[in-house]
Amino acid sequence: MTAAERGRRRRGRGAEAAPQPGRDVNYRQLRNPFPQMEVFPADQIADMHDTALRTLEELGVKTLLPEARKLFKQGGARVDEDTEMVFVGREMVEAAVASAPKSIACRAGSRRRDFTLELGSLVFQPGAGAPNATDLERGRRPATGQDYLEFLKLTHHFDVFQMISPQVEPQDVPTHLRHYFTTRAQMELTDKFPFFFSRGTPQVMDCFEMLTTARGLSDDAFRGNAHCYTIINTNSPRTLDIPMAQGLIDFARHGQMSIITPFTLMGAMAPITVAGAITLSHAEALAALTLTQLANPGAPVCYGTFTSNVDMKSGAPAFGTPSHFQASLAAGQLARHLGLPWRSAAGSASNTNDVQAANENQFGLWGCIMAGATVIIHSAGWLEGGLTVSFEKLVCDAEVLNMVAELCAGVQAGSSEIGFETALSEVEPSGHFFASSQTMERYNTEFYQPHVHDYANFGTWAERGSVDANHRATDVWKGILNDFRAPAVDNDRIGDLHGFIARRTAEGGAPPES
Amino acid sequence: MTAAERGRRRRGRGAEAAPQPGRDVNYRQLRNPFPQMEVFPADQIADMHDTALRTLEELGVKTLLPEARKLFKQGGARVDEDTEMVFVGREMVEAAVASAPKSIACRAGSRRRDFTLELGSLVFQPGAGAPNATDLERGRRPATGQDYLEFLKLTHHFDVFQMISPQVEPQDVPTHLRHYFTTRAQMELTDKFPFFFSRGTPQVMDCFEMLTTARGLSDDAFRGNAHCYTIINTNSPRTLDIPMAQGLIDFARHGQMSIITPFTLMGAMAPITVAGAITLSHAEALAALTLTQLANPGAPVCYGTFTSNVDMKSGAPAFGTPSHFQASLAAGQLARHLGLPWRSAAGSASNTNDVQAANENQFGLWGCIMAGATVIIHSAGWLEGGLTVSFEKLVCDAEVLNMVAELCAGVQAGSSEIGFETALSEVEPSGHFFASSQTMERYNTEFYQPHVHDYANFGTWAERGSVDANHRATDVWKGILNDFRAPAVDNDRIGDLHGFIARRTAEGGAPPES
Repeated sequence: MTAAERGRRRRGRGAEAAPQPGRDVNYRQLRNPFPQMEVFPADQIADMHDTALRTLEELGVKTLLPEARKLFKQGGARVDEDTEMVFVGREMVEAAVASAPKSIACRAGSRRRDFTLELGSLVFQPGAGAPNATDLERGRRPATGQDYLEFLKLTHHFDVFQMISPQVEPQDVPTHLRHYFTTRAQMELTDKFPFFFSRGTPQVMDCFEMLTTARGLSDDAFRGNAHCYTIINTNSPRTLDIPMAQGLIDFARHGQMSIITPFTLMGAMAPITVAGAITLSHAEALAALTLTQLANPGAPVCYGTFTSNVDMKSGAPAFGTPSHFQASLAAGQLARHLGLPWRSAAGSASNTNDVQAANENQFGLWGCIMAGATVIIHSAGWLEGGLTVSFEKLVCDAEVLNMVAELCAGVQAGSSEIGFETALSEVEPSGHFFASSQTMERYNTEFYQPHVHDYANFGTWAERGSVDANHRATDVWKGILNDFRAPAVDNDRIGDLHGFIARRTAEGGAPPES
Repeated sequence: MTAAERGRRRRGRGAEAAPQPGRDVNYRQLRNPFPQMEVFPADQIADMHDTALRTLEELGVKTLLPEARKLFKQGGARVDEDTEMVFVGREMVEAAVASAPKSIACRAGSRRRDFTLELGSLVFQPGAGAPNATDLERGRRPATGQDYLEFLKLTHHFDVFQMISPQVEPQDVPTHLRHYFTTRAQMELTDKFPFFFSRGTPQVMDCFEMLTTARGLSDDAFRGNAHCYTIINTNSPRTLDIPMAQGLIDFARHGQMSIITPFTLMGAMAPITVAGAITLSHAEALAALTLTQLANPGAPVCYGTFTSNVDMKSGAPAFGTPSHFQASLAAGQLARHLGLPWRSAAGSASNTNDVQAANENQFGLWGCIMAGATVIIHSAGWLEGGLTVSFEKLVCDAEVLNMVAELCAGVQAGSSEIGFETALSEVEPSGHFFASSQTMERYNTEFYQPHVHDYANFGTWAERGSVDANHRATDVWKGILNDFRAPAVDNDRIGDLHGFIARRTAEGGAPPES
């Protein structure tokens, strides 16, 4: 009996004939219900933290931006201007950890898209930062502005992505104008929490102005909460380059959020061991975090790591491995040691949206989830270790994320769910429950409905052309793009945004700094 | 630098020139290191347990085998012979739970294959019970004896499968002789813990005799430990059929292990809710468990469940869903309530070894792992909700299981792993760790080496023909079968086994009973 048949039968029952609403679960503000796993005992975590502090004190961090060295020096660090090395004392780090907010209210373009970052919350981002895009119809190519817009629409579509990530680089847009293109798109096509690259103060200031213009924020309102974020990668080992340090300072001074993520590969830019690599990553994250608090105590900052291993036969990066999983767990323990919200990452090294891609991504995802990560980036669409984002993979991974979100929502076991009277005692031995009172009450709302998984039997599936999930995903993303409707915007403010972009473009834009 | 290059460099170092052994991790005896998740509060779990006991007392279980009804009646149950209904009092159930062993030593064909089933241990089985086999070269077909043998070899190959499962039905072997074929194969091609179907006492007694013959076990030695197992599915709701009840009795009386697994689909043969379905499954498992202990108090028996949901639009079974995950968690809480080892299941509804198949299987797998399942069946190869086992999927899923086994092995964070002297302080800012002392010491052993995942970059992968994981898996299973070497056997005992089979075949074999 199909649901439609049950519906017809149900409507015949008179008093119960009111139609059921469909399943509606809030994926926009999630709490992590999964138990957290510890990979190392607490004393070893304390040793790693101590060694990271010792690394900052004794080995130091090469800091290329003079302004950053100046801030570190004013804060009490020993600075060698000749070598650009900064040696950060542990008391400075401890003060920074103390002043960094433990809970960050993130204000999006509408209140239903707001969320809070703190230990215990769970936020997903799609794969980010790829130079290439791929899909089954158009193939793998350098990403374009159109790809950027399409990925933005897909990201907006799935509630389970609470933040916008810079999925692909729109390589056909000139670099001195690219931030106008990506910011305008984020202001017009979505009301989710936006991302801006840190590619020098001129671009960042442009982005802040575009954001406050489009969202109608006063300077005080803007500075009073996090309205956007940037991602800061260190240059492991122990180097903080110019645009990254500048970004930390600029975002902090304006009360906006940096997510610090040393991206370290065990055996290459980091020690070969999980413990060594995470100790290095932790040291680098603490240095960057300290800089934000020197620039503006209390500025919102998210701790983070993205640590996996290389294949020691080839030096190639690997993702979704046991070592990646363990690194996420170790980073989670250190984040809890600090008490700060933090970001981790899933991802895949596969070159196509295949079983490897699915298994690596999901394996890494569970590592992040059981590590208690607050934000999980690269949780959908990421191929080739980040060189490509796939339209089909984004759709397939979003299915897994939706299912995780369903688990966050939980389920009940009260007497109406156990259902001794409404189910168990209604059905005879070897009977079925299709028509039990409990089923009738719930058939339309009880289960998650997939968008790409297919439950047809083999015969039906074969008759329909034996289409695998990868190819079904093409229809899914095309359907989403076809039906896309942007959220309502304030036309006056968007007009002002266009005016700003036209003026700045005429002035020559803002080239990225390095 | 490749590992080979590093090896050459290393050998140049004189004192350190001894070659490193490759990575060798024991996957044969695993403990579950993952934290266990609770989906329901303890009082609701207690309510479910109570409702299950009430179900057995008030609603009863239809028990088709007269001998089973007799045992229940002798044990104090109220039995209605006309309706074949058995009403089991809670004190009988509680006595059975008390006498069932909390820890079961499973003796395989060699000591290195032995394992213990108890809460906290973790054992994997490949997908089981399918009528069809599929692979990319030969297509989907009714399974044959050759398929059975090939799957058996693959199961033997991967250490992470500690138990043999009945992966496919060898449909070209007559049903009255099939158990000779499958038992002989298990005795000759593997020393892992074997499986026998419960299809009537004559077949089961044949299997026990073949096992004791081939393994050289006295009657006392055989009865003294679990040397084989069967799987008992109830006919939900609330029915225990003749071969299943007979199997429970026969295995219990000989000290061999039954794994009880009500296979229930929420919304079809079970209530639509997780709580209702698991309450029903729990009741049925308790009834079957009680029968084993009535037949032989202290007989080894494994609690179990396999509960997922149907798609309410079509009635089709779904696997690897949020409801499936939650059902595993709830069953785990009930198993811990009893203190018994227990079996759960992963699986996929996909019709081909695609991204859906990977994602469903792994999603269900994590549900089982976080539920603390002792045995996870259908953890590799299972397609179409169990109608087909795929050679390629088995290989791909085994990769995930190996990675889980790696996590069971754990990792260290002592001072040599943190490596302040041997790694962190050896490498300059923006340098690399390829040649650090710590890397030199560990490059050959630190990371898991995959058998089907490929870390080549896009260019290399494309040059090699853009082969996806599914197609690479074909080469993997063919390679394993090509290189297969069976463990050593005692030729005299195998000769006796052949003699037994020849005699019993001449006598007409043993048709399955139903």
